[in-house]
Amino acid sequence: MTKFTVSAEDMEPIALGGAFLGTGGGGDPHIGKLMAQSAISTHGPVTVIGAEEVSDEALCVPVCMMGAPTVMVEKLPRGEEAREALQQLEAFLGRKADALICIEAGGLNSTIPFAVAAATGLPLIDGDGMGRAFPELQMVSFTMHGVSATPMVIADEKGNSSVINTISNQWTEKLARAQTVEMGGAALVALYPMSGAQMKKGILRGSLSLIKEVGETIAAERAANRNPADALTARLAGRRLFTGRVVDIERRTTGGFARGKAIFKGVDADAGRVFSVEFQNEFLIARDDSGTALATTPDLICALDADGGLPITTEQLRFGLAVSFIGLPCDPQWRTPAGLDLVGPGYFGYEQAFVPVERLGKAG
Amino acid sequence: MTKFTVSAEDMEPIALGGAFLGTGGGGDPHIGKLMAQSAISTHGPVTVIGAEEVSDEALCVPVCMMGAPTVMVEKLPRGEEAREALQQLEAFLGRKADALICIEAGGLNSTIPFAVAAATGLPLIDGDGMGRAFPELQMVSFTMHGVSATPMVIADEKGNSSVINTISNQWTEKLARAQTVEMGGAALVALYPMSGAQMKKGILRGSLSLIKEVGETIAAERAANRNPADALTARLAGRRLFTGRVVDIERRTTGGFARGKAIFKGVDADAGRVFSVEFQNEFLIARDDSGTALATTPDLICALDADGGLPITTEQLRFGLAVSFIGLPCDPQWRTPAGLDLVGPGYFGYEQAFVPVERLGKAG
Repeated sequence: MTKFTVSAEDMEPIALGGAFLGTGGGGDPHIGKLMAQSAISTHGPVTVIGAEEVSDEALCVPVCMMGAPTVMVEKLPRGEEAREALQQLEAFLGRKADALICIEAGGLNSTIPFAVAAATGLPLIDGDGMGRAFPELQMVSFTMHGVSATPMVIADEKGNSSVINTISNQWTEKLARAQTVEMGGAALVALYPMSGAQMKKGILRGSLSLIKEVGETIAAERAANRNPADALTARLAGRRLFTGRVVDIERRTTGGFARGKAIFKGVDADAGRVFSVEFQNEFLIARDDSGTALATTPDLICALDADGGLPITTEQLRFGLAVSFIGLPCDPQWRTPAGLDLVGPGYFGYEQAFVPVERLGKAG
Repeated sequence: MTKFTVSAEDMEPIALGGAFLGTGGGGDPHIGKLMAQSAISTHGPVTVIGAEEVSDEALCVPVCMMGAPTVMVEKLPRGEEAREALQQLEAFLGRKADALICIEAGGLNSTIPFAVAAATGLPLIDGDGMGRAFPELQMVSFTMHGVSATPMVIADEKGNSSVINTISNQWTEKLARAQTVEMGGAALVALYPMSGAQMKKGILRGSLSLIKEVGETIAAERAANRNPADALTARLAGRRLFTGRVVDIERRTTGGFARGKAIFKGVDADAGRVFSVEFQNEFLIARDDSGTALATTPDLICALDADGGLPITTEQLRFGLAVSFIGLPCDPQWRTPAGLDLVGPGYFGYEQAFVPVERLGKAG
């Protein structure tokens, strides 16, 4: 599908699918959905276009929220900050954007761009920069294709903002993260302004279609009283990692991130075993009782409520909750040496080497 | 004197006088002097003009270094960053500056503007925003006169920069300080862009003339083998606080500031007594053995090497050094309720109320 229209109702599956592929991060899907639905109700539906439909000279801009998802839940954006960040970037560049991009899959960050697209009338490109969510802003395919994150605008809900220019995307992360922390832990940003030609080189194609399809699958399975885990694992060539109940959870919001570790006691087929999952906004590594990694970043570690079947974000993990974890292979770009340097286990401080989730045997 | 020209040689007394009135902060005078002398040698002398000579419509811009003086000593600017910060601010405003301002008195911050003035050919206004040095960027007379610190440009020596826009000067301090820390602890800034009319309302007049005169006094007294303390105390209606040798010094560079406390054993007339001085970039409070405050911010606590007679900055304090401390009355604006809210002892967390240094008896 190269072009489609997104209504307020369509935001239900998009929020669900984004939250699932957001690997525990990318923010609460409920807030983002409400923001997008409100904007679509006021301004009309959003057009999603294929990457190839964008001219090489077009100005394409990702807009998203930055910060700890734990904070985003408590600190609701007014709804206008993301558009204001975009407008400030346009003013700085002296040029209007032609199309918007989702920087990542995630409950908030694949819904906020719909709110901005509705409010501005700009099309959204069917793709994203991660094919999942990652915690730091340089962790996008565009970095691997030499696109600068700056000029970047960062804005808070109080009216403070900055236009950042840096010598590298790692420096952008440092300066923007420090301001995000000062702004209260979460901020709205417009960044990686790029040409259509640059977008076509770097973007992971079809993400928004996939997010919608995943969300529709979740809704259909739940409507049929089935947990969506099996259907999603089959559809996405994934592997069931484990199902377990949270027996211990430690978390801290530090340095602008939600970091922590959860311990699970296996249930059903996994009864009698113990598992752990560590996260920094997103789930980074899942291990079994022996400490063996079941899945590691950059492969996707996705979570569903084992009872209700809804996607679970890291901030929703709580004592006693039963969760099904599914591992999905990441985009092949992330498995290259450059990709692993940027988002592999070593970057996050783990000695564990990356292990492709396919190692766990046949899909579905 | 309403207009004068500053040569490379004139930078010697200006650096000395700035360091003295910088109350221990404002950076190392040697580095700033070299930067200014180099720029003047290349581009020619700097013109200093009186505030009244500037038209009400002129664009006046302070340029300075921000951060911990301890870091500034180790992290030499290339010499171009301050001018680049100014140029970026001009680009953002779409307008060229007509005159430059020193934000404060200080070894570095009353010399760097001369380097920028020489390189750009812009005049420097005979005045400043503090009449001394203070550690935070909202602590200027312009804040009390309703001038916004933003748009502000912050730039480092690596090529990273931001244009900041905020809802208050306290917010500017927070966002700029966080970036200063990320940039390595020191950065160059152009901020408080203001009209000539705004400048005339807020500026403390005659500071550069005074800095030069103080520096010339220090040089003349030293040439006559006299410690300049007596001559300066008499000239500036100050009070001798004490002379003592450092017996204990604790310091830490934290949150982008050089903080600490020094204990002194009295010498000469003060033999047998113990004194303390606390600082955050600048000296904030001086106490005698009984804990009684001899002088407090916003009055000036200035330090001279008791032997050599040169100004001493907080980062030069070291075990065994004998130092003469002199208290000077601050500009009357700082003693108003609004001034004390901004820079009084309470702002820095002291329970001690402000005590005018004149309480210590007759001047000189």
